[in-house]
Amino acid sequence: MTKKMHLAAFITAGPGRPGGWRLPDSVPGWLDASYYQNMARTLEDGRFDLAFFADIVSVPDRFGGSTDSQLRYGALGSLRVDPLPVIASMAAVTRHLGLAATVSTTYAQPFTVARSFASLDHLSGGRAAWNIVTSFQESEARNFNLDEQFDRSTRYERADEFLEVAGKLWDSWDDDALVLDVEQPLFADPDKVHRVDHKGRYFSVQGPLNVPRPPQGYPVLIQAGASSKGKDFAARWSDVIFCSHASKESAQSFYTEIKERAATFGRDPEEIKILPSITPVVGPTTARAKELADEIFELVPPIGGLSTLAYHLDVDLSTFPLDERLPEVEVPGVAGHYHEVREITEREGLTLRQLGKQYGGRYEGNFIGTADEVADGLQDWFEDGAADGFTLQVPYQPGGFETFTRQVVPRLQKRGIFRTEYEGSTLRENLGLTRPASGEWQRRSGAQG
Amino acid sequence: MTKKMHLAAFITAGPGRPGGWRLPDSVPGWLDASYYQNMARTLEDGRFDLAFFADIVSVPDRFGGSTDSQLRYGALGSLRVDPLPVIASMAAVTRHLGLAATVSTTYAQPFTVARSFASLDHLSGGRAAWNIVTSFQESEARNFNLDEQFDRSTRYERADEFLEVAGKLWDSWDDDALVLDVEQPLFADPDKVHRVDHKGRYFSVQGPLNVPRPPQGYPVLIQAGASSKGKDFAARWSDVIFCSHASKESAQSFYTEIKERAATFGRDPEEIKILPSITPVVGPTTARAKELADEIFELVPPIGGLSTLAYHLDVDLSTFPLDERLPEVEVPGVAGHYHEVREITEREGLTLRQLGKQYGGRYEGNFIGTADEVADGLQDWFEDGAADGFTLQVPYQPGGFETFTRQVVPRLQKRGIFRTEYEGSTLRENLGLTRPASGEWQRRSGAQG
Repeated sequence: MTKKMHLAAFITAGPGRPGGWRLPDSVPGWLDASYYQNMARTLEDGRFDLAFFADIVSVPDRFGGSTDSQLRYGALGSLRVDPLPVIASMAAVTRHLGLAATVSTTYAQPFTVARSFASLDHLSGGRAAWNIVTSFQESEARNFNLDEQFDRSTRYERADEFLEVAGKLWDSWDDDALVLDVEQPLFADPDKVHRVDHKGRYFSVQGPLNVPRPPQGYPVLIQAGASSKGKDFAARWSDVIFCSHASKESAQSFYTEIKERAATFGRDPEEIKILPSITPVVGPTTARAKELADEIFELVPPIGGLSTLAYHLDVDLSTFPLDERLPEVEVPGVAGHYHEVREITEREGLTLRQLGKQYGGRYEGNFIGTADEVADGLQDWFEDGAADGFTLQVPYQPGGFETFTRQVVPRLQKRGIFRTEYEGSTLRENLGLTRPASGEWQRRSGAQG
Repeated sequence: MTKKMHLAAFITAGPGRPGGWRLPDSVPGWLDASYYQNMARTLEDGRFDLAFFADIVSVPDRFGGSTDSQLRYGALGSLRVDPLPVIASMAAVTRHLGLAATVSTTYAQPFTVARSFASLDHLSGGRAAWNIVTSFQESEARNFNLDEQFDRSTRYERADEFLEVAGKLWDSWDDDALVLDVEQPLFADPDKVHRVDHKGRYFSVQGPLNVPRPPQGYPVLIQAGASSKGKDFAARWSDVIFCSHASKESAQSFYTEIKERAATFGRDPEEIKILPSITPVVGPTTARAKELADEIFELVPPIGGLSTLAYHLDVDLSTFPLDERLPEVEVPGVAGHYHEVREITEREGLTLRQLGKQYGGRYEGNFIGTADEVADGLQDWFEDGAADGFTLQVPYQPGGFETFTRQVVPRLQKRGIFRTEYEGSTLRENLGLTRPASGEWQRRSGAQG
C-alpha cells in the first residue's frame, strides 16, 4: 500500500485572515453553529482527518498598544468563539472527522482540561484532539490576573507538568474499570480506579478523574513548536505537529529535525505526523488562479495584516516606518513565523506595508494554480520528505474548503496518495497511530531527549 | 392569560441517583452524545423551558475517606461527563430548549467562563444558561492545587466578584459593535468595544472579551442557594433558582423569602423564577405508581445513598451507627439538604440505613400517583405560592422524562397552566424574563440588600 497523506483543516472560529471576510464568497457565520457544521460536513465528504481550531484568549493589542487595528480590520484576533462548544457542535453532525481545539496550559487547570477532552473523546466516539499551546501574549496574561506573562521557560516547564498530570488523569480509570453489573451491584470496580496524588511544582492534583479512560487512550495531541523548547515539547508529547514554512527546504529540515528528536525521546518517528500549513488558491487556469490570488490580496488592509503579525511575533510593528523593510529584531513570539517572514521579505524585497498585506493574505507560491498544479505541489512536498500531510488554511471560509475538497482531493485520491474511505473509526486510527497503553505518559515524562 | 408554570429537567451526565442505573428501563448511555440528544428531543417535544446539568469536579470521598462507595454503587458522583460539550451536542438537535451547565466560580477564571457561555449562547441562538456553584467538597479542592477548600464566606465573596467580572465582559461589546462593513472596511467599531480593566481582590482582568455580547444579554443565571449567603447571592444574581423541599410549607416559606430579598436588591420579584425539585413516579393507577416507587426503592443500595448524602452534607456518615437515627450534627455542606433530611427522618422515623435508601431513591410523597394526581400536586404547589414551576428529577433516565412528557405534560397543558407552544426564541423569552440592558451587572453589583 502506498503511504497516504493526512489532511487537517485549519478553521478560525472568527473572521480569519484580514480581508477574507470582505470577499463576496465569505459567509459571516462565525456566531452560528450551522456555519461550523456545514464546514464539518464538507470536510468529512472530503475525507479529511481532522478540523483544527487555533485559539487566543484576548483581543490582541500588540500593534500600538490598542485593540483598534484588530477590531476595525476584522483581523485574526478580533473575534474568537470558544472552540470547545464549536467542536462539540460539529461532532453532532459527523461520524469520522477528527476535531481539534486549542487550549492553553498557562491559563487552565489540568483537571478541567483533561476532563473536557476525555468527555469530548467519549461523546464523539474517539475523535477529539487537543492542540496544546502555552500562550505568549501580554494581553492574554492581563485577562488572567497577571501583570505580565510568565517567561518562555516557565511556560514550557508548566506545560510539561500539565501534560504529565493530564496523562495521569486519563489513566486514572483502567480501560476495563466500568463494569455495570446490575445484580451485584458493581458499577465501576474500585480497584481499577486510582487516585493520582500528583504533587509537583505547579500542580497538586489528587484525582481520580470523574470520566473513564478516553476511547483513544489519550485524545490526539497536537503542537506547533518552532522554538527549541517547543520542538522538544512537541517531540515528546505530540501525535501531530502543525508548522509553517515558506519553502520546501525549510519544511524538509524541520521535518528531519523533529523526527530525530522524537527518536531521542524513545519514540517511533512514524508516530508523529508533521502537517505543514498551506494556503492554496485554486483556479480553472493558472492565470485565473493568480488573478484570484491578486483579488484576495487586494482586499487585505495592510494594517490588519501587520496587526496580526505584530502579535504573532510579539513585536510592536507600529513603531517602524511603513515603507521600509522590517529590520532585524529580537523576536520573543513565534520564532518560526519570524524566520518565514524574513525569508519572504528578503526573497521578495517587501516593505513593511507590503509585508502586512502579504502576511494578511499570504499564500505560498507553490500552491497557486490549477487543481492539478496544487496537487503536484502537495505531492512533491509529501514525497520529498517535507510533510506527512498538510494543514489546509483557506483565504476565505467556507468556500475555500469546498473548492479544495471538490477539486484537489479527488486528484490526490486518483494518484493513490490520499484515502477514499476512512480507515478506522477513531481519529487515531485514521492517522495510523497506536492507541497509547495506560501508563504511556509515564514513559514519556521520564524520557530524556 | 393564566400564569404559566415553567419546567426544567435536571439531568445527570452520569448514572444519577444510586439504583437508577440498575432499573431495566435505564439506558447506560452516559458517554454517548445520542443519549443526551434523545433526551433533548423528548424535552423539547414536552415544551420544557430547559435542561439543567448539575456538576462536581471530583469523585467524592466523603464517606469513609474513600471513593469506593461512589464507584461501586454508581452513586451520583461516580462518573460525570463535562456538561459543557454535552449541552453543545444537545443544542445541535433542538431549536427551543434552554440548556444549562454548572460551572464553579471557585476553580475557574471569569474570562474563560464568560467566554464559554457567551459562545454557547451565540451558537445555540440564545438558549444558554449557567448554573453557578461555589463548590464545597474537599475532594474538589484537592484536584485544584488546594490542601483544603476556601471557607464559605471566601467562596461567596469570590463568586460575587466573579459575576461582576463576567457581567463586565459580557457588556464589553456594545450590542451594535459588530458592523461588518465590507467597503470601508469596518469589521467592528473600536469605539463600541471596551476594555474592562477590572482590578479586584480575586481577579484582575483587562478585557474586552473576544466574543460579542450574547443574544440574551447575559446567559440565564441559575443558582441553588440554601444558606443565608447563598440566598443573598441568588437574590442578587439569579434568573432561576433551583431548590429542594420535602413539603409545600417549606417551599412556600423559601419562595416568599427569596422574592422579598430580591426586592431589597431592587429587583422585580417576577424576574426570579423559583423551581423546586420534584421526583414524580407516575403509574396507571395510584397503587401501581406506589408499587413502582417501591420497586425503584428496592434497587437502591443504602450505602450508595448514604455516600452521596455524606458529600451533600459534607459529613462523614460512615462514622455513625447504621441502625440508629442520624444525630443532630453541624453541617458545613448544603444546609437545605440537611433540613430536608432531618424533616424526612423525623416524620418517617428512619434509621441511617433507611435514610440512605430513601435519599438515594427519594421521591416526595405528594408526587407519586397517576398522571392526574401528579398534575394535581404540581398545580397545588404552583397556585399556592410555593413555586413558579418545577425542576424535574427522575428516578431513571431517560424513561422518567418520557413518561412525564407523555402523561403529565398534556394534563398541565389542558388545565391551561403550561405552554403548548414556545412563546419566544430565546430561553429568556420563554421564561418571561427581560433581556438585561448593557450595564445591568453594575446596578446589581452595587445594590445593597
